[in-house]
Amino acid sequence: MKLIVNQKNLKRAISLVEKVVSKNTSLPILGNILFKTENGRLRLSATNLELGINTLIGVKIEEVGEIAVPARIFSDFINTVQDEKVTLVTKNNTLTINAEHYKTSILGFDPKDFPIIPKIKSEPIVSIPASILKGALVKVLDSMAISETRPELAGVLVQIKDNQCVFVSTDIFRLSEVILPIKASASASIILPRNTVAELVRMCSDLEGDVQIKYADNQVAFVAEDIELVSRVVDGTYPPYKNVIPEKFISRALIKRGELENNIRLAGLFASSISDVKIACSKDKLTITARNSDKGEIETDVPAVLKNEPFELSLNYRYILDGLKNMPGNDVIIEFTGAGSPLVMRPGDDKSFVYLIMPLRN
Amino acid sequence: MKLIVNQKNLKRAISLVEKVVSKNTSLPILGNILFKTENGRLRLSATNLELGINTLIGVKIEEVGEIAVPARIFSDFINTVQDEKVTLVTKNNTLTINAEHYKTSILGFDPKDFPIIPKIKSEPIVSIPASILKGALVKVLDSMAISETRPELAGVLVQIKDNQCVFVSTDIFRLSEVILPIKASASASIILPRNTVAELVRMCSDLEGDVQIKYADNQVAFVAEDIELVSRVVDGTYPPYKNVIPEKFISRALIKRGELENNIRLAGLFASSISDVKIACSKDKLTITARNSDKGEIETDVPAVLKNEPFELSLNYRYILDGLKNMPGNDVIIEFTGAGSPLVMRPGDDKSFVYLIMPLRN
Repeated sequence: MKLIVNQKNLKRAISLVEKVVSKNTSLPILGNILFKTENGRLRLSATNLELGINTLIGVKIEEVGEIAVPARIFSDFINTVQDEKVTLVTKNNTLTINAEHYKTSILGFDPKDFPIIPKIKSEPIVSIPASILKGALVKVLDSMAISETRPELAGVLVQIKDNQCVFVSTDIFRLSEVILPIKASASASIILPRNTVAELVRMCSDLEGDVQIKYADNQVAFVAEDIELVSRVVDGTYPPYKNVIPEKFISRALIKRGELENNIRLAGLFASSISDVKIACSKDKLTITARNSDKGEIETDVPAVLKNEPFELSLNYRYILDGLKNMPGNDVIIEFTGAGSPLVMRPGDDKSFVYLIMPLRN
Repeated sequence: MKLIVNQKNLKRAISLVEKVVSKNTSLPILGNILFKTENGRLRLSATNLELGINTLIGVKIEEVGEIAVPARIFSDFINTVQDEKVTLVTKNNTLTINAEHYKTSILGFDPKDFPIIPKIKSEPIVSIPASILKGALVKVLDSMAISETRPELAGVLVQIKDNQCVFVSTDIFRLSEVILPIKASASASIILPRNTVAELVRMCSDLEGDVQIKYADNQVAFVAEDIELVSRVVDGTYPPYKNVIPEKFISRALIKRGELENNIRLAGLFASSISDVKIACSKDKLTITARNSDKGEIETDVPAVLKNEPFELSLNYRYILDGLKNMPGNDVIIEFTGAGSPLVMRPGDDKSFVYLIMPLRN
């Protein structure tokens, strides 16, 4: 392989794939990035066996070829050199990079040992603008279960039907659901592993156009113009979460999101792990109290517009903050659905997102 | 105590003292900040017994008094509230903070249990502009020993004579010396502990005027307009470091600092812990090579203007980078003083700073 590449393009491509590079010491090949010439471009690939990323960049190829190069040193190197053009040449699994003021050899690995990232040949099911896909995923990030005891909860359910795409996550303490209107050519119900969700958010942050979703044989691919993320899906059945979302509310309050967030944060300083914070909504205000026998106590309120009866309940303040963080707009709606039922939070003027906090059980 | 204080001023004062607050769980009182009214102002104090900071802020006092308040929760609280004015009231070692939309009580401690920060009543020895003091300390930060096996090396020697103030640090692998011209009213030789040096740098970053140095009874104080840092000094004798600084050089090279730094960084990627990087200076260039049997190798060069004979030696590249980082100006001078003698680095046009790297011994 011999090619000339723009340093900035190469740097960007490396940053896209290197996060997937595994530090798995029992399989050192996974610590590499595969460089391979492909139809006049250079393909960079990384995989941790669960999740793989391919990206293509324009280069000037003088000789086709491929090599697996340790990601860490190559990334450090390419971030430090200041040349505009970099010439990469391989010989016997060694990558040499020479310029006017330096000569470098980086020891690589046999590209044949690099795991194959599956190719999904079926047609895309749906195409979603990257910024919208990212917006939906960010809203469901926090509610994924951290523990792998129930693998299906340590991920995001993506349900694609003919005219909507639903994103759901729950760790049984809270639940997030985002519904996007779309046009799909087929249906699918996929559980994305948590790392895939995080990587996909990062990939989308860097993209402008659309992302196509392809799905076959327990593998899902998210394909954009010059980058592709391929992931296994979680094997399992997602719980029937729809049952948990209350259809009716007893009381509903409309509150300024920023003020509520600030006051919950203040109260959180005094929350003890046991009693947490208490919220009580009366006709025109929501009062938040917290008490901690070691630190002190606080009572704070924010103006609220209440529909129906006053209500009160105790909650984990971090769950409230997680929900508020992802609410778009200036207003938030809080729906009380009864003691022992979830508290429902929604944006003031956006019906596509709902966030539930399950009641504390003593 | 009852007083009204501007939230921004209080926030700044807390940020100045809170870094000193100790997490020493056997003495919980050290986790507090002492609030005390003093001559119409509010004094905030924190100490970890080695090092104490006092700062004064303007407040409107309605009732004098004092209280010790847990630093962590007070700091979080004051950083979260959005009021311009905050009213602090104490009663039975509880601090209450009330405003239109909240009522807060923070449990404090008896101020009588708070350790006394020593007061140094002697006259200042010298007065140095904060920015210049900071500049000198930053240059000697990296060379302090990290280990406390030789406590005198885990700090900075400050030698004040009638017309100069010398700052020195060495961990026996490298040595930094900064000489400031000053007018002192007395002589002193003080070893500042490493944490004191770091805190002093932070304190100076935030100041505009002069810092006075006072010294008595193994305590040193750095006093500015509304803040004062008081520290014990390290008990011990600093080694006769002057003997280590070579008086003559065999060869001297003048090099562009930025280019050298970048090339050393590149070579450092290939440095193995044993052989490290080799630098070889010929008539018009400095060549840097590094080789690592696992990663690969590099040879890179930067233009140099050499006086006298070519030379070469092996060095720890991190020590070179630490030295270059603190060199002012565009050029750096490297002096070869013989195999087995230190490599000397100086700024191209500033005689006040010298940085030595001791030779590697195999």
